[in-house]
Amino acid sequence: MTSRTSRTGRTRSGRRAGDSGTREAILAAARRRFGASGYDGTTIRAIAADAGVDPALVHHFHGTKERLFAAAMQLPVVPGELITSVLAAERRRLGDEFVGHLGEIIVRTVLTVWDVEDARASFVGMLRSAATNEHAARTLREFLTSTIMAALAQAVGPDGGEPARRRYRASLVASQIIGLGFTRWVLRLEPITSASAADLAAAIGPTVQRYLTGDLT
Amino acid sequence: MTSRTSRTGRTRSGRRAGDSGTREAILAAARRRFGASGYDGTTIRAIAADAGVDPALVHHFHGTKERLFAAAMQLPVVPGELITSVLAAERRRLGDEFVGHLGEIIVRTVLTVWDVEDARASFVGMLRSAATNEHAARTLREFLTSTIMAALAQAVGPDGGEPARRRYRASLVASQIIGLGFTRWVLRLEPITSASAADLAAAIGPTVQRYLTGDLT
Repeated sequence: MTSRTSRTGRTRSGRRAGDSGTREAILAAARRRFGASGYDGTTIRAIAADAGVDPALVHHFHGTKERLFAAAMQLPVVPGELITSVLAAERRRLGDEFVGHLGEIIVRTVLTVWDVEDARASFVGMLRSAATNEHAARTLREFLTSTIMAALAQAVGPDGGEPARRRYRASLVASQIIGLGFTRWVLRLEPITSASAADLAAAIGPTVQRYLTGDLT
Repeated sequence: MTSRTSRTGRTRSGRRAGDSGTREAILAAARRRFGASGYDGTTIRAIAADAGVDPALVHHFHGTKERLFAAAMQLPVVPGELITSVLAAERRRLGDEFVGHLGEIIVRTVLTVWDVEDARASFVGMLRSAATNEHAARTLREFLTSTIMAALAQAVGPDGGEPARRRYRASLVASQIIGLGFTRWVLRLEPITSASAADLAAAIGPTVQRYLTGDLT
């Protein structure tokens, strides 16, 4: 993610005081809109109107809707972009062997992000909200579908079958990854909570691999 | 689970009014104790003292601590007992092939229970509480560990390795099964929410099988 100061073209020390107020107003409007209308039903135009600014300014500060959502939810990464860039780098590194390593790469990437305490807190917070609030569940469901799961379905390519089959595969991956996050960080079930990331990647990577490219019948 | 009336030795119409008051007092005391002290830290003796009755009466009404917990949480089944009895029946039916079908049997059993709306509501309620309340998370964590996961570790037998290894295997199974429940019934992520139980058993059964008896390194 590009840093905030570089996107405005000013150094941190030279930033105008008015910027941060506008930025906060945009993030507050974004949180309200995403909460009330879901991820799919929210537009940058509507958030700009709520915040009383021009849509171009929202784009200038935050770029895409996914980036704005990540900033509003205080996610330290933009999940769909992260998955896409990690997979692109691994594809260059591994060449033809890439598709056979997808599962392990995905589990390692998720665990690396979650090992950063702030990141974990944000994702756990989203799971907690989704568990108890139907609006939050809808927003998370639509966000996952439009970003992370779409990125997975794209990455697996024709090995995953037709588009509907690839969406089913991505939702199976979500069931395992979300379950890993829930048992390890919310329920704190042992011994999965104290297992190393390497052990979990070895154990769970092949599951994700089979969901993406294997025989499911 | 034995029905309440048959356990007291009276027909429904002949039941004394005092029984249901006592039973309710026991269940209320159980909910408070399990909530405050967790599953492991709660004894039938302490619940009986809180309810002002003799421990023998609690045993008479509810049998084991697991049954009392299931009744207090309004679970329509006693999960550890259900898993144990389903697996015992399948072991008799399948003989030596039993261990190779464990994964599919477990996923099918879970989905069968969850297809009953009342059952689903109880389990979803426990997940929701655990997501937002540390006491509820501890109670669910200890309950899963002492009952369902212990039953799984027992069922897999020596094929699963030494006891610590079998506990790790059971916690991996929990991560997938809880993730399935969370994405299908709490998050309602598609297409996993509208997938048939047979399709999910075929897709997820081999994952559970590998976690219980396969190579994890």
